[in-house]
Amino acid sequence: MSRSPEPDLAALQADSRVLWNEDVLRFCDTDANGHVNNAAFAMFCESGRVNALTSVLGPTLGPDTFFAIARLVIEYRAELHYPGRVRCGTWISRVGSSSVSFSQVLLGPDGRLAATSDAVTVLMDGESRRPKPLPAATRTDVEALLRPE
Amino acid sequence: MSRSPEPDLAALQADSRVLWNEDVLRFCDTDANGHVNNAAFAMFCESGRVNALTSVLGPTLGPDTFFAIARLVIEYRAELHYPGRVRCGTWISRVGSSSVSFSQVLLGPDGRLAATSDAVTVLMDGESRRPKPLPAATRTDVEALLRPE
Amino acid sequence: MSRSPEPDLAALQADSRVLWNEDVLRFCDTDANGHVNNAAFAMFCESGRVNALTSVLGPTLGPDTFFAIARLVIEYRAELHYPGRVRCGTWISRVGSSSVSFSQVLLGPDGRLAATSDAVTVLMDGESRRPKPLPAATRTDVEALLRPE
Amino acid sequence: MSRSPEPDLAALQADSRVLWNEDVLRFCDTDANGHVNNAAFAMFCESGRVNALTSVLGPTLGPDTFFAIARLVIEYRAELHYPGRVRCGTWISRVGSSSVSFSQVLLGPDGRLAATSDAVTVLMDGESRRPKPLPAATRTDVEALLRPE
Repeated sequence: MSRSPEPDLAALQADSRVLWNEDVLRFCDTDANGHVNNAAFAMFCESGRVNALTSVLGPTLGPDTFFAIARLVIEYRAELHYPGRVRCGTWISRVGSSSVSFSQVLLGPDGRLAATSDAVTVLMDGESRRPKPLPAATRTDVEALLRPE
Repeated sequence: MSRSPEPDLAALQADSRVLWNEDVLRFCDTDANGHVNNAAFAMFCESGRVNALTSVLGPTLGPDTFFAIARLVIEYRAELHYPGRVRCGTWISRVGSSSVSFSQVLLGPDGRLAATSDAVTVLMDGESRRPKPLPAATRTDVEALLRPE
Repeated sequence: MSRSPEPDLAALQADSRVLWNEDVLRFCDTDANGHVNNAAFAMFCESGRVNALTSVLGPTLGPDTFFAIARLVIEYRAELHYPGRVRCGTWISRVGSSSVSFSQVLLGPDGRLAATSDAVTVLMDGESRRPKPLPAATRTDVEALLRPE
Repeated sequence: MSRSPEPDLAALQADSRVLWNEDVLRFCDTDANGHVNNAAFAMFCESGRVNALTSVLGPTLGPDTFFAIARLVIEYRAELHYPGRVRCGTWISRVGSSSVSFSQVLLGPDGRLAATSDAVTVLMDGESRRPKPLPAATRTDVEALLRPE
């Protein structure tokens, strides 16, 4: 199993291009194995992406568009246990013609790395449900936050 | 964005090493974008893995062990819309000393490919929460189902 | 704790006004108590209501309307354990000017009663987000299925 | 539809017997109706109950016990919209031989009342999965917080 190297959390915390948001663990996030279920990690990653998309990209996107996810990778680094909060650090790692790629870290209640994630999202037209190019103003805003791998 | 090639669904359906299970879409799987939320795909993949783990590996595993996921990759190929059923085809793509890797396809209510997925799971000791080697009998059962990439 | 009397399952199964649908338990429905989490029961009840609303009421409702839930009561009768299927029996117990009330039973994988539920739903205008009266044709269809308490 | 009267939020906020906790809305809590799905309300109520059970009752309960829910009532008062936080106020409304009843309010991101809830929970033996009497010390702690209806 090839794994990405452990990210430098101190560097991420010091980098203003990394956006941070927080989720609260719920009892129903746990499963019969006694820990937070793996699918909940996908929810936390989505919280970070939506937060980034809304704050950075939202203002310049036209109406009736949304971002759909094309590819999601999650590397699980440590179990999460209820209760507590999960912090998510999100940054933009790549910009394509109609796609925006994100990288993320999830930190557990103890501040330790629980997961890393990469996602490719694609701007979609709400009517046709087909990809559409990023508006120029959106691209400018996104590129200002780009933190290449 | 590099994407895996489209899997050969007919070959998968004809291959007895591929295990099939079914989930029912729920209204709460949808999100404000009007389609099934991406995190629900992670749940459907888990259904397939747990089904495979239980039916194939379960009988030979000792008590107080469980499989934890180390890495999950989902490639989203088409939107899923409520209502209907999702079929999941799951096969074992690799066996390590304490890990079992799965590949999966998710088929939507119309039978079309909605997603492909790869996951690495690791056998864990329930007490120590640390990886432990696959028992020999488990390894034999798993290797009989191996469908290498 | 005052509890409703146990419903007569045989009578429900024989009554054509009761609509049946099925959900599949997911591993992530379980929680750290080792059983299906109580909030998942709310999801199964919703599946039954949406199924009823879509099949019975849907055809005569105008566009841009939806049913919102005003009140939900669930009486938990037995634990549900993964894996397996949940059957939901749903009937209409009351019709108001803009509301439709449902009663439900949830049956576990063993066919035993897992929960009973009552819900009041209200027809909403999608634009104003305010209640609106049931169209006359909808009322006729609903009253044909009414199974008063 | 008979509805409970609107609770006095100022009185609840001033009452030290009411315990407050907070959840963060997730994008996947929304559904195709564009608002937070009704089942998510059940999750928020559970967060409040578990918080209360852990902080008040947890210290005196023996090992291998858990509280199961016997009855849940939710009255939906206003839609919740993503994003934002939900505050939950929880108090103990009744104590039985093996049961503890809770009442709750859910406040949306704007501080307005989104829902009220009542729940009956029962102390369960983890081994036998049967109700067991509240220990005397637990009863003392619970009764100190009792806020009868």
